[in-house]
Amino acid sequence: MPSPRPAADPVQLRDVSLRDGLQSIARTVPTSIKREWLQALYAAGVREIEVGSFVPARLLPQLADTAALVEAARELPGLVASVLVPNLKGAQAALDCGAQAMLLPLSASHAHSLANLRKTPDEVVADIARIRALRDASGSRCLLEVGMSTAFGCTIQGAVPEPEVMRLLRAVLDAGADRVGLADTVGFADPLQVSHLFNQAFEIAGDRLACGHFHDTRGLGQANVFAAWQAGVRRFDGCVGGIGGCPHAPGASGNVATEDMAYLFRSMGVPTGVDVDALLALRQQLSTWLDGEPLHGAIWRAGLPRTLKEAA
Amino acid sequence: MPSPRPAADPVQLRDVSLRDGLQSIARTVPTSIKREWLQALYAAGVREIEVGSFVPARLLPQLADTAALVEAARELPGLVASVLVPNLKGAQAALDCGAQAMLLPLSASHAHSLANLRKTPDEVVADIARIRALRDASGSRCLLEVGMSTAFGCTIQGAVPEPEVMRLLRAVLDAGADRVGLADTVGFADPLQVSHLFNQAFEIAGDRLACGHFHDTRGLGQANVFAAWQAGVRRFDGCVGGIGGCPHAPGASGNVATEDMAYLFRSMGVPTGVDVDALLALRQQLSTWLDGEPLHGAIWRAGLPRTLKEAA
Repeated sequence: MPSPRPAADPVQLRDVSLRDGLQSIARTVPTSIKREWLQALYAAGVREIEVGSFVPARLLPQLADTAALVEAARELPGLVASVLVPNLKGAQAALDCGAQAMLLPLSASHAHSLANLRKTPDEVVADIARIRALRDASGSRCLLEVGMSTAFGCTIQGAVPEPEVMRLLRAVLDAGADRVGLADTVGFADPLQVSHLFNQAFEIAGDRLACGHFHDTRGLGQANVFAAWQAGVRRFDGCVGGIGGCPHAPGASGNVATEDMAYLFRSMGVPTGVDVDALLALRQQLSTWLDGEPLHGAIWRAGLPRTLKEAA
Repeated sequence: MPSPRPAADPVQLRDVSLRDGLQSIARTVPTSIKREWLQALYAAGVREIEVGSFVPARLLPQLADTAALVEAARELPGLVASVLVPNLKGAQAALDCGAQAMLLPLSASHAHSLANLRKTPDEVVADIARIRALRDASGSRCLLEVGMSTAFGCTIQGAVPEPEVMRLLRAVLDAGADRVGLADTVGFADPLQVSHLFNQAFEIAGDRLACGHFHDTRGLGQANVFAAWQAGVRRFDGCVGGIGGCPHAPGASGNVATEDMAYLFRSMGVPTGVDVDALLALRQQLSTWLDGEPLHGAIWRAGLPRTLKEAA
């Protein structure tokens, strides 16, 4: 498919390792280390970082310091700090600490929604409308982004019908989401499916469709990023070191590695502002900070090709 | 880019593990094991297999049994046995044993050509013309395919100018190659470059451009396969278990795994005739036969997604 947007448009990479990565790792990383991690991402040129999640600390104690991380992120000029928010209470916490963006998860799979959030997708849509009203009443400019998970299939339910994805997309836009992304939470997507679903979704959401979130569970992460980029997506989630993973696929690698996407776009001549080598240095630090946890990704093995090093 | 060919066209996967894979592994696998390997590939539905190379046994002792493997391959109905041939003497050996296809390597990089074949690219083109004359004089129907290596860049030379790739493409077609493929020998390619180079090459070679050969050195193997498929390529090289690799990039993974490509195309609904699970079983055997050698690829980690298992 020819891209509906200029190929030279910059691409924004949002690193979600401090949230999507750490939520699937049992250990608690000290806040001081997380601050270093945040600063290293920023120094590498990443300008949007998901720093944590406002879920009850008893569920995810490893993310209990989210407010402190938002505070640290707000000190870095030009950085957008986003937080995951599962409900109204979390949204209030996000507004209270001054997060610049909230990620509201919505599962397109009914079964996944019940298992993960204990609500049907339509109940979540109703929550989103309430969160929009709360945000507006507060006078905050915090962006509301809905991340539509399991949009390409679900480990519990199996196939997720495309008309249901499109129905929910319309519903969240009607409920007041500022923007929405499609997520392949469990690594089921293939690049043709990605082309197709994003093309359909652009018809409905236009510029409010603003994120692709892919996992590399089965090795198609980068192919799916490329297909979404061809469809016009100019913003992607990733995790440095490819951490993340999926509790339903043991041994499987996680989110697409941020450094791998930075390499892909740099190879293609698409500006991201992100430095691959700086992310590789951070990845090296993660192997110490997360000692024993598997890291993933690909560009770390051989490094940049000579042709790119010479161009630099 | 819209594909110039119907998306439903079948795709042919040629497994080259017995040649490209084993030539970069020092150990010699016994011929009896290689026969089992060949038969397992065939049983998985692979219908074109590169079984070895007619290079001097002192250079690659691990491929010295190539003629015996061609003989074994010829017993399998409908299987095309191809062999790599570096010169006229090798071509005679290929004709003598009844191989159905010869792969003639030609480096688009002058420096790589000298290092690898001790000849300039144009000297290799002259050899190809002689091999064509030999083939025609013999009355054989053995297909002559030129594999243009380092078409996307070279570890020794760096960038390989596109006009030089196109000039050599015209030259090998004029010299009598029946078909030609473009190879990213060292894993430098990105999917936009792949789109671009294959689109250009189709203009020159038409249907005689008949193979994409990618390495997954930097994690873009599948994205590059997808981009080449979009450009119209319907035949790809791969190695089961992702063996192969490149002596110039230590630690880097090798050829795109045949099972990963079979998964990609199955996900997209493109027929290949190849069974992913049967290749995964063979991969498991390789971990015994090649005990200690690193295997690569991705689909082995999590297996087929539930949506595909249910569709089967």
